[in-house]
Order: sequence, then structure tokens, then C-alpha cells
Amino acid sequence: MTSLPAPSVTTGPLPASTKVFRHGVLHPDIRVPMREIALHADAGEPPVTVYDASGPYTDPAAHIAIAQGLPRLRAGWIAARGDVQAYAGRPVAPADNGLVPADQRSPEFPLRHLPLRARDGRAVTQLAYARAGIITPEMEFVAIRENLGRAQARRHLARDGQGFGAAIPDEVTPEFVREEVARGRAIIPANINHPESEPMVIGRNFLVKINANIGNSAVTSSMAEEVEKMVWAIRWGADTVMDLSTGRNIHNIREWIIRNAPVPIGTVPLYQALEKVGGVAEDLTWEIFRDTLIEQAEQGVDYFTIHAGVRLRHIPLTAERVTGIVSRGGSIMAKWCLHHHRESFLYEHFEEICAICRTYDVAFSLGDGLRPGSIADANDAAQFAELQTLGELTQIAWRHDCQVMIEGPGHVPMHKIKENMDRQLAICGEAPFYTLGPLTTDIAPGYDHITSAIGAAMIGWFGTAMLCYVTPKEHLGLPDRDDVKTGVITYKIAAHAADLAKGHPAARIRDDALSRARFEFRWEDQFNLSLDPDTARAFHDETLPKQAHKLAHFCSMCGPKFCSMKISQDIRAQARAQQGMQTMALKYRAGGDLYMAADALEKLQR
Amino acid sequence: MTSLPAPSVTTGPLPASTKVFRHGVLHPDIRVPMREIALHADAGEPPVTVYDASGPYTDPAAHIAIAQGLPRLRAGWIAARGDVQAYAGRPVAPADNGLVPADQRSPEFPLRHLPLRARDGRAVTQLAYARAGIITPEMEFVAIRENLGRAQARRHLARDGQGFGAAIPDEVTPEFVREEVARGRAIIPANINHPESEPMVIGRNFLVKINANIGNSAVTSSMAEEVEKMVWAIRWGADTVMDLSTGRNIHNIREWIIRNAPVPIGTVPLYQALEKVGGVAEDLTWEIFRDTLIEQAEQGVDYFTIHAGVRLRHIPLTAERVTGIVSRGGSIMAKWCLHHHRESFLYEHFEEICAICRTYDVAFSLGDGLRPGSIADANDAAQFAELQTLGELTQIAWRHDCQVMIEGPGHVPMHKIKENMDRQLAICGEAPFYTLGPLTTDIAPGYDHITSAIGAAMIGWFGTAMLCYVTPKEHLGLPDRDDVKTGVITYKIAAHAADLAKGHPAARIRDDALSRARFEFRWEDQFNLSLDPDTARAFHDETLPKQAHKLAHFCSMCGPKFCSMKISQDIRAQARAQQGMQTMALKYRAGGDLYMAADALEKLQR
Repeated sequence: MTSLPAPSVTTGPLPASTKVFRHGVLHPDIRVPMREIALHADAGEPPVTVYDASGPYTDPAAHIAIAQGLPRLRAGWIAARGDVQAYAGRPVAPADNGLVPADQRSPEFPLRHLPLRARDGRAVTQLAYARAGIITPEMEFVAIRENLGRAQARRHLARDGQGFGAAIPDEVTPEFVREEVARGRAIIPANINHPESEPMVIGRNFLVKINANIGNSAVTSSMAEEVEKMVWAIRWGADTVMDLSTGRNIHNIREWIIRNAPVPIGTVPLYQALEKVGGVAEDLTWEIFRDTLIEQAEQGVDYFTIHAGVRLRHIPLTAERVTGIVSRGGSIMAKWCLHHHRESFLYEHFEEICAICRTYDVAFSLGDGLRPGSIADANDAAQFAELQTLGELTQIAWRHDCQVMIEGPGHVPMHKIKENMDRQLAICGEAPFYTLGPLTTDIAPGYDHITSAIGAAMIGWFGTAMLCYVTPKEHLGLPDRDDVKTGVITYKIAAHAADLAKGHPAARIRDDALSRARFEFRWEDQFNLSLDPDTARAFHDETLPKQAHKLAHFCSMCGPKFCSMKISQDIRAQARAQQGMQTMALKYRAGGDLYMAADALEKLQR
Repeated sequence: MTSLPAPSVTTGPLPASTKVFRHGVLHPDIRVPMREIALHADAGEPPVTVYDASGPYTDPAAHIAIAQGLPRLRAGWIAARGDVQAYAGRPVAPADNGLVPADQRSPEFPLRHLPLRARDGRAVTQLAYARAGIITPEMEFVAIRENLGRAQARRHLARDGQGFGAAIPDEVTPEFVREEVARGRAIIPANINHPESEPMVIGRNFLVKINANIGNSAVTSSMAEEVEKMVWAIRWGADTVMDLSTGRNIHNIREWIIRNAPVPIGTVPLYQALEKVGGVAEDLTWEIFRDTLIEQAEQGVDYFTIHAGVRLRHIPLTAERVTGIVSRGGSIMAKWCLHHHRESFLYEHFEEICAICRTYDVAFSLGDGLRPGSIADANDAAQFAELQTLGELTQIAWRHDCQVMIEGPGHVPMHKIKENMDRQLAICGEAPFYTLGPLTTDIAPGYDHITSAIGAAMIGWFGTAMLCYVTPKEHLGLPDRDDVKTGVITYKIAAHAADLAKGHPAARIRDDALSRARFEFRWEDQFNLSLDPDTARAFHDETLPKQAHKLAHFCSMCGPKFCSMKISQDIRAQARAQQGMQTMALKYRAGGDLYMAADALEKLQR
């Protein structure tokens, strides 16, 4: 181990924000974190409580020590179930870090916890517990977390939305979570070796989640950068993080990430396996892959992308595509299949993979190795043939009590998006859909966070449970810290737009609070309630930097005389002063030909 | 006039791009500009021709002299119709520039052209000509412009899309343009006093257009900045530009903009009128407003936003809104109506406004003064009551041979967007819809180009003819040059995504060319074909700056070993080398249980 200092990460609360905790009832030791955004005294409104994926890093009361990792909050819950045992674990081999020379090696994580595994072939998955009728602490945790604001909303807001068959409850109970997990409609990625994670749920009847990808490549980036990217991504709202490292030091970098991650971590184990065979796809074997799964399961990876849907017979379907196979995992497996002219070891050994996943509760993210990489290839035979296989694999994984979600495209023009969702729901038994974008055009490299946010918002509305972010660097380079933030905020927008459109009962609370702040010129509240308070404030400061302008009843767009909000307030004040707007409105409604007849009004309001 | 030098603007072609011109048949003197993007010799493909709104500024052969203005390309066409006369025009008054002191005055534009107006009460609008069966040079110009790529596409691409009742032809003929204009389903904004403009068409059966707003405010920005913003906006693809200035010097700044604008210029005349009465809405009069319309029509403004739909009886419907009235024009008129307790002069004098518009061919953009300013207020009674009035006004304007489009919201959650389009089509007789966004959530100030691009792409797909851009500064400040570019590129994405989804026959050509370049590692082509080549290149350079990397068969995301595109190409090459991929595919299809049966395959391909 080198004496390198632990990496520094971004800490501290967001503006005007306090971390609060709600306690469990079934499991009183549960403390579910939420963020309260305080409003200006003039508002006369309570704080707005929002979902908080940022972990202890935004809690001034927390002691952050990256070299020790986060508190192991689920350790007691896991132990209490009495179905796991600690064991020595697989020894770390030099190949796990890509045979990196000593002078280029990332430091090992300083602490080593003995890994856990299921005893006696038991299934230690949240799905197994749910099916057995057990409400785990994880389930109550996510119920409280998801339930955010619903009680408040019930008093104020009518349900309004189009859910396309989703069944979003007025209130999320622990039992509802259990049912959804038991039916396979939701997953709680929660490896027993990642007790640092704060449970979260992915499913169509819950808030739409987002994933941020990080990871080094053979060309660029280090451990310290990746740990900070993870902390930075969750600060802005990433619900899970995938470590897609493809360079060296993969094992060590991942350990630092997992030990410090309060969110589930996903990986594509194939990337590391390929590194172990020097990058030669044909040299991959089931044994090397299996060993990599165990290595990562022992570290605590919460979900694995497994490209077992790429079958030999599907590959010729890609021959006439404009962009062939664009999934890295898919292309690796396709190459292997063609070279050996046999079915992939992922497909042939799928039940063995299930056995590993149930031993640690690693969730499946069934990869779409044949997803379209261009508008031209969207919704083609290759893509839908693979989806059919993913549906079959879902049933197998469920038989083994494994949690499953399904990955989706890619590049899809708007008019072909809904078909993706409809087919996925039908073929995969409502297992959660997890899509990358989709990008709705190919012509804007440098802006693919936007081309894809359009598709992501739409497919989220249609029922996708988690959206994998796309950054401005997509197709062009590896995202840096700024790109990660842009990607996360963009996808929080898409996810939230989807929640609003689905009719999530509490989603509008934040929109309404911000809009009221806007209308009342509470600039500070407007900044603080936004997804990115720093940027909102900075943009306002560019033209009106003085503190006094934060109190101004106008902004630089129109100046004081032209401000419609100000005029509109004046109108309201004037009307109220005269006679009360209600009375006035009634008078107007009752009026002659200048006024609108009451029945015409009612017609419009219907 | 001061001796200030003329402002400098951005000129020069985009990378790998050449301006080409197509000639008319009915009107052989027509030269329709297009941009050809050359591809690398390895591609073995012809250049990709794209729509070009940038005017002479990107033509190295053009002599740009801002102080002289652009060539007056339509002057001969207008004169040849024999229905206009030059006249002295209205004298410019100090109030036209907001009584600005001499030392703060923007310079006058150095040249003065006598304004034209219709002779003998004639209607000189494109609508009048279309109804009379005349195919104007403007109509043939836009037919050629819109027809771009269709001939090429017919050979290669099957029609694919969902048009929601749009009637997009395989080929755009001049006669088709005439019919669409005659029916009121499309407009060609083309003031006879703006002969510098290159004709363009706005309608549901044509390419989706975008508008960029510029303009100073009382707080910030100068003439030189605004002229450069206009040139910059069209460089990146803005099809029209609205000058929304609300500060002083309005008259002089606008003159510089129009004389140098190859795209239609829109305004909200109310802003200037209000400036003339010292910002006191109640002091506005029909006479002052009328005079402002003539002032602007003589200058060459191509379309006016007129908030004549804000009727007295609608105002109380906004009383309980979260954000009241957010349209500046709407709030000004509402204040006036309430103060005087009478119907607005815009509504009462609407036919007189029509008479002015037909005299110069200024198109109406019927403003949505009561558009929702928050998710909470979307699709409410106030909004739809106004829309009903806009439908009535459309019929009146059409009776006067005036061209009309209808402005739309605003802030609308995804599930309420389509209703906006459906109602607009039904109520306004298919007059083109021109929407601001809509923003699909309120919680992301600083990113409202993205919150709104989601809504804009969707409503464009549903049938909106022109999308008004939103920049990152929306709600926070006045956009600078960078914001203008970001807004334009974002809206080009939304418009293009809409064209793809509607099934525009040629839209996919550029996507496919870029995707082939991506698949074949033609990095330079990938940059050059993108909406923003500079940003795409810069992002690539951040991680792989060397020129050699532009030829590399990988990028920094995955590095050489992991590149799926490379692997996928290897697969294809390998397969082709072995036996030809087709043969192989056939063999696979014919195969036993390892392979997919041919009928299963066909089922998937259906």
C-alpha cells in the first residue's frame, strides 16, 4: 500500500438546505435522509422537503474519512436476518488490476472487511424476502423515502397525470414496496457486501430514478478523480452510479468507490474480465468471467450488467445496420460467439450466474447488447430479438429469486419510443426498464445530453423506472466533473418531468413552491429550490450582481417597467384593494356581453 | 449621426462547408442558398446538403458591409408585382428611441430607403397572391429550399413517421407552397420593406422552424451586440429572429438589425409603444400603438406579435393562478383593460391592424398573453379562453388577406402538451402554431433550454410549425452571445427530432451520414456534420488533442481495446471475409435450434 493521501471530495450542504431524518415504525432504528430547503420568512411557507441521494457528504454532522469508508449502516440489518456468513473471500490477483506496474498502481483501500455470502444455499435477495412476506428494513426505508411529501400533497393537490397503466399509490406503504418487489415490478439493489448503501427502489410505480456513469479508461483518469466524480454525481441527484472503468487498476478503484458510496453501484463485469485476458475477446472463458463476478460481488457491487441476451443467431441481424453493434459488452460477446461459433457463455451459464447473484443479492441489469446506435437502426429485428431473450432470462432469474431490471436503448426517434416501452412491459413481465436516453437524433454530438433528455423524459413518462444519463461528452470523450454535473442535472429534469406527467402525487410540490417564489420575486428561494442553485444564482448575478437586486421586483430580462410578474401582481393587488378579486371575478362572470357567460366559462374549465 | 464604426459580426463558412445556390424554374433569377458539407474522400459519399438560414455572412464570396446593409434581393420581385408605391414615410420622432439623450443614442443607420406601401388599398400579402393563384418568387424560393434532399431521399429512404394528420409531401412543389399559404396553413413572413430577407415558410407540412429572441433591455446591451447576436443566431440556424428590445434606442437598433437580416424579423410593437408613454400602461392609446405599427412596418418588420386575445372578461380567470399573467404583452394589456375597465384597443381596433398588415405584408403572430407561466397554471380556463379568441381573430385576419400564426405556451407538463396542439388546430383553422417551449417543469432555472426542449420537440412532432427558443438564462437574465448559441442549437435539436418523428422524407439523411461517419471513425466528418462542429471538435480534443487521434479507430471513452464500433467492424469484416455476411445470415436463419427459425425472424421484422 502506498502512502498516498486519501482523495478529497466535495462536502457540505446545498444552499439553505438541512439534512433531516425520518424514523421507521416497523424498524425504529431506520433513519431515512431527506433534504429540507428553507424558504424566506416572507413566504410564510414551510420548508420544501426533497429526495436526497447525496449521502453523508451533505451532512455537516457527518465525519467524512474517505480512507475509512462510510458507516456500514445496513450491517446490523443484514446480520440480523441470520442467513449470511463471513468468509475469507477470493484473494486479489494482479490481473484484477490489469497487471498494472507497481509504480502506476492505485493504492489499495486501507481497510479490508471480510466478505459475506448466503449460508446453505439460501437466497438473500430482497425478492426472496418479499416473496416470503418479510418487510425488510430496506423496504421500510424506501417506503419512507418514496413517500416524501405525499401526506402534504393529499391535502392540496388533485391527482393529475397520465400513467399508461402505472399504479402509483396515494401513499407508499412498506407493504406496497414488498408487493412490488415480490411481483418483480421493482428492485432494491442492495448487495450484502455493500452495507454502506442507503436503500433505494427502482420501479415504475415509484419516483423515476437516474444513473450516472463514471469510470476510467485506458486513456485517462485516476482513482481520486473517480471517487470525487461519484460523490459529485450523487450531490446533484444521481440515484445509482455505474463504474464503467475499462483501464487498469479496476479492482482498487472500485473498492474505494464502493466503500464510500451511499448509493448502489453497478458494473459491467465483462469489462474487467476482458482486461484479464489482455483485451482479446476470443480468449474470454466462463471461468474467468465467473471469477470476476465473485470478485465484484464480494466487493459489494449492487447490480451487474449481463449481456446474456446476445445470442449467436441474433448477430447476423446486425449485418446491414448503419452502426452495427454499439454496446461494448454486446460487441465483445458477439465477437466471442462468432469466433467460437457457439452460444455465449453468459447465456449458457445463466443459471450459474443467478446462483452467484442470489448468494450476495446482486441485481441483474440485463444488458441490451444489440441496442441501436443510430436513428436508422432503431426498433429493428436485432434489437427486438434480443429483447425477447431478455424476457426469457427474466423468468429464469426470477425462478432463482434474483432481482432483475432490463436495459433499453439507445438511439430512437420520438415516434418509435413508446413501442420500446410497450414491448418491454409485455415481454419482460413488467420488470423495471432502465434506458440509456434514448437519443432522438444523431446530429448533435456535444449536446447528446439534450438529444437524449428528450427521449428520456418521454420514455420515463411511458414507464421506464431508471434513466441512465448521457453527458455532453457522449461519443466524443470521457466526461469530466463538469460533464457529470451537467448530465445529472439534465437527467433529473427528465426524471422529474416524467414524474409530473405520470401524475406522481407529490411531484408538483417543488414546481409550485418555485413558481410562487418566482411570482413573488423571492429570488433566493427561486435559486435554492432549483435543481442547481449555484448556476441559477450565477446566471442572475451576471447581469444583476448586487445583493440589492436579489430583493428587486424585476430582473435584467425586462427591467422594472416591463416586468409582467410585477404588472400581474399590481393587477391582483389593485383588484383586491378595490373589492376582492373573487367578487370582481363573479361580477365579471355575471356581466353582459363584455363578459364571459358563466356556462361558457364552465365549458372552458372542463 | 455619430461617427461610430459599424459593428463587426461573425463571418466565414462553417467547417468543410460551401454555400451553393439552386436556381428557380418559374423565376429563373431566384438563387436559393444551401450549405454543402463535404465528406472525407474515404467516405465515397457525395456532400450532405443542409438547410442554410445564415445568409451571406457564411459566403466567402459576399462582401459584408454592415453600414450598408445586405443586398436587397427581393426588391425587384416586389416592384415587378406593380402594386406598391414608395412614399416619404413617417418622420422618426425622439420618442421612437425612448427620448434617449444624445450622448447615449445609438447611431442612426447611415442609409435611408424610402418605404413602400400597397397602392390603392391592395393587399400585397403572400396570402392574397396565393389566393389569386399566383406563385410568387417567394413561394418558389421556399419550395426549392424546403425540397432539399427529397429527391435523394426518395431513392434511399422509406417514409417513416407519425404525422398526427400532417400532410407532408414527397416533394414540395411551388404549387404546394401556394396551396398551403392560400389555405392559411403556412405563412411566408415577407414585409415589402424588408427586401433583404431570404424567403422562408412556416407551416406544419414543412420543416419545423425555430426563432431566436434578441433585444436590449433598460438594464443592458447595445446596438453592436444586438446586430452580432442576430448574425450569430442565424449562423447556428435560427430561421427567424425576434427583436424584443424594451430599452431605449429601440428604433435605431431595429433599423440596423433589419437592414442586415436575411431572415424575417418579428417584434412585439407594444413594447416600443409602452416606451413612448414612459412605461405607464394605462397611458397607452390606440393612436400611439397604431403609429408604432406603421413605424415598424415601414422599417420592414416581418411579423408582429399582437396580444389582441386578452379580453377584459378573461382577466379574472387569472386571479387564482400560481403565476398570474407572465406574458409581458399580456400583462400590459390586462393592466390597461382593468384600469379603463374596457375592452383592449388591440381587440377593438383589430380590423384596423389588419388593414396595416395587408398594406405592408406584416404577418400576425397572435400573442398568447395569458399563457401559463408555471406547471400549475397549464391548460387552464384563462389560457383556453384566450385561444378561443385567437381563433376568432384568425378568421378576421384571413378575411383581410393577412397571414397569421398563433403563439402558444409556455409551461406545460408532458401529459398536457398534446391537448394544446389539438385545440389550436381545431380552433384556429390549422393556422401555424408557434410555441415557446413549452417548459415541462419549473424546477430548473439555469437549464430551461433543456426543460423546454423536451416540450418543444414533442409539440413540434404533434404539429407546431415554429419553436421559439429558450436560453439557459430564461427567468434569470438577458442571454449573451453564448446563451444565444446554446438556445439555437438546443432548438435545432428539438426541431430536427420533430422532423424525424413526423416522417419528413429527407430529415434522416444527415443523421445517417453522421452515423456512418461515426461507425467508420471518420472523426472529421462526424464533427463537420454535427449541428455545432466547433464544440464537437473541442470536446474530442479535450481528451485526445493530437491530430493523429482524428484518424484513430477509437476514442477516449473506451480506448482502443474496448471500442464497440471497432469490434463491430471487425465482426463484419471477419464475416465478410469468411463467406459474405449475407450467406452467413442465411445459413444462420436456416440452422437448427441454435439458430432462429426464418418465420420467427420474419415475425420480428414485421
